[in-house]
Amino acid sequence: MKMSVEGESYESRAINFDERRGQVQMIDQRLLPHEVKFITCSTLEDICDAIKNMTIRGAPAIGAAAAYGMAVAALHGLDLIKAGEKLKATRPTANDLFYAIDYMISNIELECEHTGRGIDEVAMEYAEKYASEVVDKCKKIGLYGSDMIKDGMGILTHCNAGALATVDYGTALAPLRVAWKQGKKFFVFVDETRPRLQGSKLTAWELKCEGIPHTIIPDNAAGYYMWKGDVDMVITGADRVVLNGDAANKIGTYEKAVVAKENGIPFYIAVPMNTFDPNTLSGKDIPIEERDEGEVLRIDDIMIAPEGSPAKNPAFDVIPSHYIAAYITEFGIFEPKEMASAYRNFVGYE
Amino acid sequence: MKMSVEGESYESRAINFDERRGQVQMIDQRLLPHEVKFITCSTLEDICDAIKNMTIRGAPAIGAAAAYGMAVAALHGLDLIKAGEKLKATRPTANDLFYAIDYMISNIELECEHTGRGIDEVAMEYAEKYASEVVDKCKKIGLYGSDMIKDGMGILTHCNAGALATVDYGTALAPLRVAWKQGKKFFVFVDETRPRLQGSKLTAWELKCEGIPHTIIPDNAAGYYMWKGDVDMVITGADRVVLNGDAANKIGTYEKAVVAKENGIPFYIAVPMNTFDPNTLSGKDIPIEERDEGEVLRIDDIMIAPEGSPAKNPAFDVIPSHYIAAYITEFGIFEPKEMASAYRNFVGYE
Repeated sequence: MKMSVEGESYESRAINFDERRGQVQMIDQRLLPHEVKFITCSTLEDICDAIKNMTIRGAPAIGAAAAYGMAVAALHGLDLIKAGEKLKATRPTANDLFYAIDYMISNIELECEHTGRGIDEVAMEYAEKYASEVVDKCKKIGLYGSDMIKDGMGILTHCNAGALATVDYGTALAPLRVAWKQGKKFFVFVDETRPRLQGSKLTAWELKCEGIPHTIIPDNAAGYYMWKGDVDMVITGADRVVLNGDAANKIGTYEKAVVAKENGIPFYIAVPMNTFDPNTLSGKDIPIEERDEGEVLRIDDIMIAPEGSPAKNPAFDVIPSHYIAAYITEFGIFEPKEMASAYRNFVGYE
Repeated sequence: MKMSVEGESYESRAINFDERRGQVQMIDQRLLPHEVKFITCSTLEDICDAIKNMTIRGAPAIGAAAAYGMAVAALHGLDLIKAGEKLKATRPTANDLFYAIDYMISNIELECEHTGRGIDEVAMEYAEKYASEVVDKCKKIGLYGSDMIKDGMGILTHCNAGALATVDYGTALAPLRVAWKQGKKFFVFVDETRPRLQGSKLTAWELKCEGIPHTIIPDNAAGYYMWKGDVDMVITGADRVVLNGDAANKIGTYEKAVVAKENGIPFYIAVPMNTFDPNTLSGKDIPIEERDEGEVLRIDDIMIAPEGSPAKNPAFDVIPSHYIAAYITEFGIFEPKEMASAYRNFVGYE
């Protein structure tokens, strides 16, 4: 991804491993968009803290941080099972976290047993491989998805499913990055995404760094621009896709999908296939995380509601499959009803 | 309306006239919900400033402030035509402002010419009459609308169409106040209403003072609660209703109306009949005010977006008539297609 700091622009992933020093560098997402600052994690504890305190967020990016965390643990001669448990305890919901740690442990064991190579060397190799695979999936999502984008389009996105959430490229933002490099001209409406404002704080920053024309809008205004005819497609990421083709994503996505359908605008979800959960039947079965009411009642510590008025803060909502035009994945584009068989064909069941 | 300050609760309108002192008292809405403070306006200039700087807001409440402003001008022996022009120049869009001033001038002229009474005495009488008529309309909206509210209901509202915006009772909040006094039990979902947060700052405060159970939600979560089955009706105010039954209201109202319909939830608009505009054919003909992008990019002067990312800030959107179950007015309840004839029957064309 492009990052611009004080007018200077350079390419970087959201998280990197410095093999020579055995350190992990990651952009501090809590300071964005006001400050672009990489922090250095030298120990397993540093990485656990960075995941816990949301220096790094976004399921695929958390997975990469965990893989690098395992490499750091191996470099320091720590017990990998215990290190994995420590990492798994940092956040409860991101599937990628658990997946990445299991990936690291099984590959390190297999490789070391059969080749006699050192654990630290193998761990570094697989951590890098894991992060690169995440990037590779996003890049393919970008290539497939870019076909959807035509010159002159208005494109609406919700929350941040960008490079910051996925090491590089992003999921929903990957097709936009690829289309922009292809020379296509389009305009992006960025929902600010209350309560945590990932749209205005992160997505707008990514688009600004790439030079892609965009505007931030209150979440309330998305429907207005769809009704006016200014939006030609909607694209978001998802946190989970289930057997019947429903998805869960950042709160507010459901409203955008309903209003898009009402206005004849296609609504796409861009996800790597490992977002698919073959153990859940329908969107109604997805547990919805309730977060702290303080995220709604305060903005940057400023109280914006009366003392004594409570707030509700569901973090996600469910998008029933009939509002979703298609899923854009690293294996191609699928209708919601095709996702279960696509998962079976390309990933398979254990 | 009930106002509670440090645990003490008392009844008050949002704006009052102290006839003995010839002063207007109004609650400073810019300080809510953190501070409940009435300011005193002793001169015409004070009242103009209070309207301009949004100490008082909400079209019906602005109308009442203007009527009282004319009374203050009369008490000070000012030229009423010039005073009216000064008041009309404070804000450009609220119809009630112009209506209230014309109401005052024509009634004062008529009464003084035929009775020989003093201008100041007549002006005070009509200013009080104007404010009381606003309250009376809202009270009737509350009585008619309360029939819609049943025990156990979940009710969603957007923005603030409460007593603060209308001297007393409110439009959308009037049926809730009446139903609550009737002893009905229900629960209110309060959209926070970005960008200006009238829901969390004003509506939540009004409900808290009345003791009506409620919760603030991000605008993004309204659809989720409708989908879950927790919302049984949606009620909002409107800024304009036009000939074909469409309405314009606070940005975001359109999305709520679409999602309500999709979930089989009735969507009501509560308005006094003078909100009806017989000179505009369709919602598409209503001009939508674009406000300053700073309201989106900053919250209480804190920047929440990257430098250089622009924002759009449309203040209203249009709700096409087929999403509106009914209008609740001081003359009863009407389907959108009945509004033009109701206006003709009850108000008439000039």
